[in-house]
Amino acid sequence: MLPDTRLPSSRQLARDLGVNRITVETAYDELEADGLVYSQRGSGTYVSPSLSIPDKLSGKTSTPAEWPLWQYELLPRQDMHEQPVEVGTNRKDLISLAGGLPDSRLFPVEDFRKVFRSILRRDGIQAFEYGDGAGYLPLRQTIAQILSGQGIPARPENLLITSGSQQGIALVTQVLTRPGDVVIVEDPTYASALDFFSTYGLKVIGMPVDSRGMAVEQLEEIIRIYHPRMIYTIPNFQNPTGVCLSGQRRRLLVLLSARYNIPILEDDFVGDLRYDGRAQPALKALDVDGNVLLIGTFSKMLMPGLRVGYVLAHGPVFERLVFFKKISDLASSTLIQRALEAYITVGRYQAHLRRACQAYRRPRDALAEALHSYLPEVRFELPQGGIFLWAQLPEGVFAEDLYPFAWQEGVTFAVGSAFLTSKEKSSFMRLTFSQVTPDEIDQGVRRLAKAVANLRRIKRKS
Amino acid sequence: MLPDTRLPSSRQLARDLGVNRITVETAYDELEADGLVYSQRGSGTYVSPSLSIPDKLSGKTSTPAEWPLWQYELLPRQDMHEQPVEVGTNRKDLISLAGGLPDSRLFPVEDFRKVFRSILRRDGIQAFEYGDGAGYLPLRQTIAQILSGQGIPARPENLLITSGSQQGIALVTQVLTRPGDVVIVEDPTYASALDFFSTYGLKVIGMPVDSRGMAVEQLEEIIRIYHPRMIYTIPNFQNPTGVCLSGQRRRLLVLLSARYNIPILEDDFVGDLRYDGRAQPALKALDVDGNVLLIGTFSKMLMPGLRVGYVLAHGPVFERLVFFKKISDLASSTLIQRALEAYITVGRYQAHLRRACQAYRRPRDALAEALHSYLPEVRFELPQGGIFLWAQLPEGVFAEDLYPFAWQEGVTFAVGSAFLTSKEKSSFMRLTFSQVTPDEIDQGVRRLAKAVANLRRIKRKS
Repeated sequence: MLPDTRLPSSRQLARDLGVNRITVETAYDELEADGLVYSQRGSGTYVSPSLSIPDKLSGKTSTPAEWPLWQYELLPRQDMHEQPVEVGTNRKDLISLAGGLPDSRLFPVEDFRKVFRSILRRDGIQAFEYGDGAGYLPLRQTIAQILSGQGIPARPENLLITSGSQQGIALVTQVLTRPGDVVIVEDPTYASALDFFSTYGLKVIGMPVDSRGMAVEQLEEIIRIYHPRMIYTIPNFQNPTGVCLSGQRRRLLVLLSARYNIPILEDDFVGDLRYDGRAQPALKALDVDGNVLLIGTFSKMLMPGLRVGYVLAHGPVFERLVFFKKISDLASSTLIQRALEAYITVGRYQAHLRRACQAYRRPRDALAEALHSYLPEVRFELPQGGIFLWAQLPEGVFAEDLYPFAWQEGVTFAVGSAFLTSKEKSSFMRLTFSQVTPDEIDQGVRRLAKAVANLRRIKRKS
Repeated sequence: MLPDTRLPSSRQLARDLGVNRITVETAYDELEADGLVYSQRGSGTYVSPSLSIPDKLSGKTSTPAEWPLWQYELLPRQDMHEQPVEVGTNRKDLISLAGGLPDSRLFPVEDFRKVFRSILRRDGIQAFEYGDGAGYLPLRQTIAQILSGQGIPARPENLLITSGSQQGIALVTQVLTRPGDVVIVEDPTYASALDFFSTYGLKVIGMPVDSRGMAVEQLEEIIRIYHPRMIYTIPNFQNPTGVCLSGQRRRLLVLLSARYNIPILEDDFVGDLRYDGRAQPALKALDVDGNVLLIGTFSKMLMPGLRVGYVLAHGPVFERLVFFKKISDLASSTLIQRALEAYITVGRYQAHLRRACQAYRRPRDALAEALHSYLPEVRFELPQGGIFLWAQLPEGVFAEDLYPFAWQEGVTFAVGSAFLTSKEKSSFMRLTFSQVTPDEIDQGVRRLAKAVANLRRIKRKS
């Protein structure tokens, strides 16, 4: 029936249908209460405007001009980082040195399959309940054991389970800072942390990074100028540079944190994956006062899709973190936490770590060798661990300009600007060696060299 | 070795050990780089202060006075809602009418065990990878089908998978509002939404609720005074009142939203669980312009520990939501999404829904009957669906005062103040009937009646 059609009067309809007039009036009242019809005093009852799905929302695309006003403010912003647009044919043999995932071939799928089966048998319905707001206690106990073995003061009651370390970054930032506050970061640093900080409204101040990590010697002056509310650092195999913060700088950083009353967010996303050199103590292990909050994850060590990370924090801040976790998503899946706990004994973790170190050392060495061979002008420091190598292209070659040429040749990487606070074009690129074989790396770097040559040829012409 | 102990000079140690002096100097340099020793020019090399775990952090408890200054600001705040402290003995036969969980006996554990087994066999390592940032596409397709069947314009590309509907609330709020903005809510409303809004820094304005839901007739005036940036509503079986928004009010609400350019966050946490009466169209089904964002969840319908919910949104806001999901926790577990997708066919969903409706109608009726029998002074409207009943205690009896007496008798409930914007003591309590049998309900309400009598006796004495 068309909208605004007048319905028969209740008297008329009752007569037509041979029912009581009250029955018809009750039906009309119900229709009106539901908004399906409307009545106008003294004029009758009418069909309401159509409830059918509007064309605009059922259509796949829509031009911005058609949206409500408030949606305009939400159109994509210029300052959000985007990987350069991919051009050319979608090659099937594309070699990706971009991304930041572990080698999925190392993941013990079969073991996990068994673990899930036994968990579901053992715990039944409990595996689908909310569980403890801070996370599954036995898993927190296991993580506390692993961390204690690394000299980090960790008890289960100081550990909060998060959905990966990204949620740890978001929770800690929301608890420690307010929009408008200043946060200190390494420059370059993890792109999705930068995205969170700037979207949340923080003023981000970058510290230079050299082969011994963040230039902590310059930090005191920066602190005096900017009065930061938080320092975010990745001390081990930093993303994207791959460097480790030196022991001396670690001590100085913790000292400055205590002296100037500034909490440190220590992101140890891949700390244990060391191929050579000696491990430095975690900042959290040097923290006497409770100024350091440590976040860790199983995303790099096992698989990212597990979405299990943790925050280690002491003092009143811990309860605030648990509260923010609750209002952010109530709790993380208890089933996955139970499965992870059943899988991760300390011994198994160590064994998996050893396998991973063996597995990643080879592609790292292959990448260094290939760069020396095919791109001798590219400068880099050999990372002692982790999964990233930070490479500087020859004078005058920008990673952003190279990207489409590399894509054309069948190789990708992460452009340096994604990791910089300025987001400016740079000659740096991040190469990930954890998802490719030594052969693929050799082939990938050859392609990269060809892309550099192609870019230069074009540049000379123009 | 004690801190600040002077080490032998490199010349001396080289002679003592019979090694080259350069070897010793290299070793000292390494120790210094690690921060284990420090050198003073012209004076020698010294042991650094101890790296051992400080007593404070290894101890279980610690008084606030010992924490860094910044932690003081994070001590528990007065304005955060807390359920009244539980007193008396921890009775084993406690009957809980608090909480907001579904009946775990309805959950098809055995079916899910099979589903997990076949998913892990079918998808292998893929079940542990990140997957699509908006969520597992086949699951989004299934949800789109279910919603379309309810007259809601839903396509997979308008659906974002979240960690339960709590994350949906958090993401939408962060995208649509800034701290200091005004949000309109029903008063009372879902406690953890209130917690998020106030913690995020919104000014929360409550609208009265009657038996037909939010008093939308008064909304236009409120909008003109407060210029809200968002309207948060639970139109079906509202938490905590159990009432449904009438059809007329739904139309008016959507109309006002469009006229005043204010997006609506529609929280349909339990919309399908209807025992009598007729369903009203979702606000999203009435939305012609893209002003309504709908959130839903499988927490009540299946199990909360799945942590799978969704946001349905059209227009530029959708991409912003995906971006906020990414910076909040990158993605939700793909394994759980795959399992849910394999379980939830449209037919199975409908069958489960029918079972749940049958299962919850009985305890709802039992609760109403028990209240009539044992607490005839208590006033309430019979909810047509959902899992909550909102009950008003007799004149002069506050739910907060009753709580310890109820606990003593072995029954608990949620106090009304948790759901009020004012957080003031009130005579209301929320009774959940989804987690208890009719017999337990009968017993629980008897205990409640005894608690009311005990409270009154004490009051008369004082």
